Amino acid sequence: MNNTAYFDNAATTFPKPEEVYRFMDSFYRECGVNVGRGQHKLASQAAAMVAETRQLLLDLNHCPNRMVVFTPSATEALNIILNGIILKDGLNIYISPFEHNAVTRVVNHLKQAFTLKVYELAFDKSSFTYDIEKIGYQFAECKPDVVITSHASNVCGVLAPITEICALSKSHGAKNVIDMCQTMGLIDTNLNNENIDYAVFAAHKTLYGSLGLGGFICKENARPEPLLYGGTGIDSANPLLPDTLPERYEVGSPNVPAIAGLNAALKWISTQGIQAIYEKEQSNYRHLVNLLQKYDNIRIVAPVHTDASIGVVSCVFDGYGSDNIGQILSDRNIAVRTGLHCAPSAHRFLGTFSAGTVRFSVGYFNTDEEFMLLEEALNYIHENS
Amino acid sequence: MNNTAYFDNAATTFPKPEEVYRFMDSFYRECGVNVGRGQHKLASQAAAMVAETRQLLLDLNHCPNRMVVFTPSATEALNIILNGIILKDGLNIYISPFEHNAVTRVVNHLKQAFTLKVYELAFDKSSFTYDIEKIGYQFAECKPDVVITSHASNVCGVLAPITEICALSKSHGAKNVIDMCQTMGLIDTNLNNENIDYAVFAAHKTLYGSLGLGGFICKENARPEPLLYGGTGIDSANPLLPDTLPERYEVGSPNVPAIAGLNAALKWISTQGIQAIYEKEQSNYRHLVNLLQKYDNIRIVAPVHTDASIGVVSCVFDGYGSDNIGQILSDRNIAVRTGLHCAPSAHRFLGTFSAGTVRFSVGYFNTDEEFMLLEEALNYIHENS
Repeated sequence: MNNTAYFDNAATTFPKPEEVYRFMDSFYRECGVNVGRGQHKLASQAAAMVAETRQLLLDLNHCPNRMVVFTPSATEALNIILNGIILKDGLNIYISPFEHNAVTRVVNHLKQAFTLKVYELAFDKSSFTYDIEKIGYQFAECKPDVVITSHASNVCGVLAPITEICALSKSHGAKNVIDMCQTMGLIDTNLNNENIDYAVFAAHKTLYGSLGLGGFICKENARPEPLLYGGTGIDSANPLLPDTLPERYEVGSPNVPAIAGLNAALKWISTQGIQAIYEKEQSNYRHLVNLLQKYDNIRIVAPVHTDASIGVVSCVFDGYGSDNIGQILSDRNIAVRTGLHCAPSAHRFLGTFSAGTVRFSVGYFNTDEEFMLLEEALNYIHENS
Repeated sequence: MNNTAYFDNAATTFPKPEEVYRFMDSFYRECGVNVGRGQHKLASQAAAMVAETRQLLLDLNHCPNRMVVFTPSATEALNIILNGIILKDGLNIYISPFEHNAVTRVVNHLKQAFTLKVYELAFDKSSFTYDIEKIGYQFAECKPDVVITSHASNVCGVLAPITEICALSKSHGAKNVIDMCQTMGLIDTNLNNENIDYAVFAAHKTLYGSLGLGGFICKENARPEPLLYGGTGIDSANPLLPDTLPERYEVGSPNVPAIAGLNAALKWISTQGIQAIYEKEQSNYRHLVNLLQKYDNIRIVAPVHTDASIGVVSCVFDGYGSDNIGQILSDRNIAVRTGLHCAPSAHRFLGTFSAGTVRFSVGYFNTDEEFMLLEEALNYIHENS
């Protein structure tokens, strides 16, 4: 398909399953009309496809009674949720040490409008795990109102024990927001869990769908204040927005080709089995870690727990800046991402701010040939360092 | 391609040029990576395609020194602009009588936060044109701060004399926002015009690109307050957002396949020539109007000026509600849109609220066969009314 050894799957998985490309193209050719805005047959077919995609996503997450809201990106989903629930002074907001700018910048913006206190969930650096006991003390001392946790770090891959964190914070009445951009479709998660209020996803990452689509899964009665206003195709005479889900948060024309891509991707995940996909990704992850650990000029910046991490590894190289390494790899058709990965607080926490790291991230489709190409390049860098 | 006679082009143009489908698919297969977030070769190729698309859009609008900001939809572009420039009490906002909910709902929402006065631009119903002289009096009496004008109504197709309106309002120091969703790519417009501050577009309508993409063209120094926060791929250590365009308003991963679709569409427009596309659309428009005018049971709700309107016609049918007509047409594989078209104020102005109308809208690709199918259906309705 292409000659690139692609280790940038945390930015977007690539390639996608063949079924995804094929269905995006064929559906858009045959049925690329506007949804919820016409009663003609093509519009009904497109609406049925969108409804099926919501159902497939709920099935994947074992939560048939939740609602799916589609947004153009996970970033926008987080903006909608956080602007919609952080509405007054005096709230205590907890975030993980690994949050992306899609969370931290929204929180920073909200701090300009409201007096908020922002705390970091306790994380034990020596064991490199969340410190649940200490988080319990944090919550007891300063009651949490909103807790935002990345299920997996996009910088170092570490997983958060979301079930425990959400149970703990819910016992204090908090609203829980889980960022599953790096995990939905990869880690089998039961979202039929009253403690989880909002689970955010990006269609184009571990769900193997298209760019241009994200969203959140929420409870039927969730009604954060809307952030975006516009036409919804229903209740058009309402001067503001309908009160129904998902329409209240889905303004403007739905992105039919991207939803078709997610539809095909969810069927692909279901056919492969999420466990098989996870095992393949973990096998690629171990392959990557074993390779990187061979070199004495490479330091992996976080302890490797192959059982509590996804396939994302950040490294620094002796004698080279991360951008230099990125360029050397790029010259050899190897794709990685260097720098801060839109997550400066994670890098501050890891001690790699502001130089950043070289991030390698695997996916389901990595091949032995790609690892061989990477090994050759790492040998070259080793010899020249 | 399909057997539907498609007269719902104002919702989204369908089909797209073959080049658009083909390039969306091939580019996403070959180069479907994240843009602005990696220095590898695929990311550079994708970034070059995105940059070229911005340039093509500026070329189309004769405004090489403006900036293009991509958003996931025109609705979102309008939310960003209006939330970003309507920031205090006491402003006078003028809107056209034909605004979509993507404008009116945002303005209604902002009226909850600020004391705003909202006026309707004067429109002479007998000549069915904007009353420029009266608009001059309106502006002299209540100085305009923000003027929002739909270049063409999505309900009845009437065009607004945006050059005159913007010149008049700019002489009072107003900011001008033009909604070109139904015109960009169809009506040759010179946006190299100091009086126009923001021109909003939807890639999937008259630009013949994909759903999932919109945006605005603005001046280099435009800096509305941001509405959405998140990662931008650059300046990641900034706690809020970079100050540069377009990054300040483009948070989250760019929608590469949709931008590829717009890229191919803009090349297609350039190859056909915008004037040739306009003439073909106008020819289809006259065909539609001539057909509809044959029937004494059909009333076109706005006077037809084929020289000052795009190919959008709203009708009411004697003895039938618009939904009934929509269903009869759908049963015969004819796609139209019925109801309020997300523009209740336009229908109030036209006297067709709350029952709405049957809207027929043509595009470049309508064929004689489609018109024959429509004629048969209209004959059937006529005989049975």
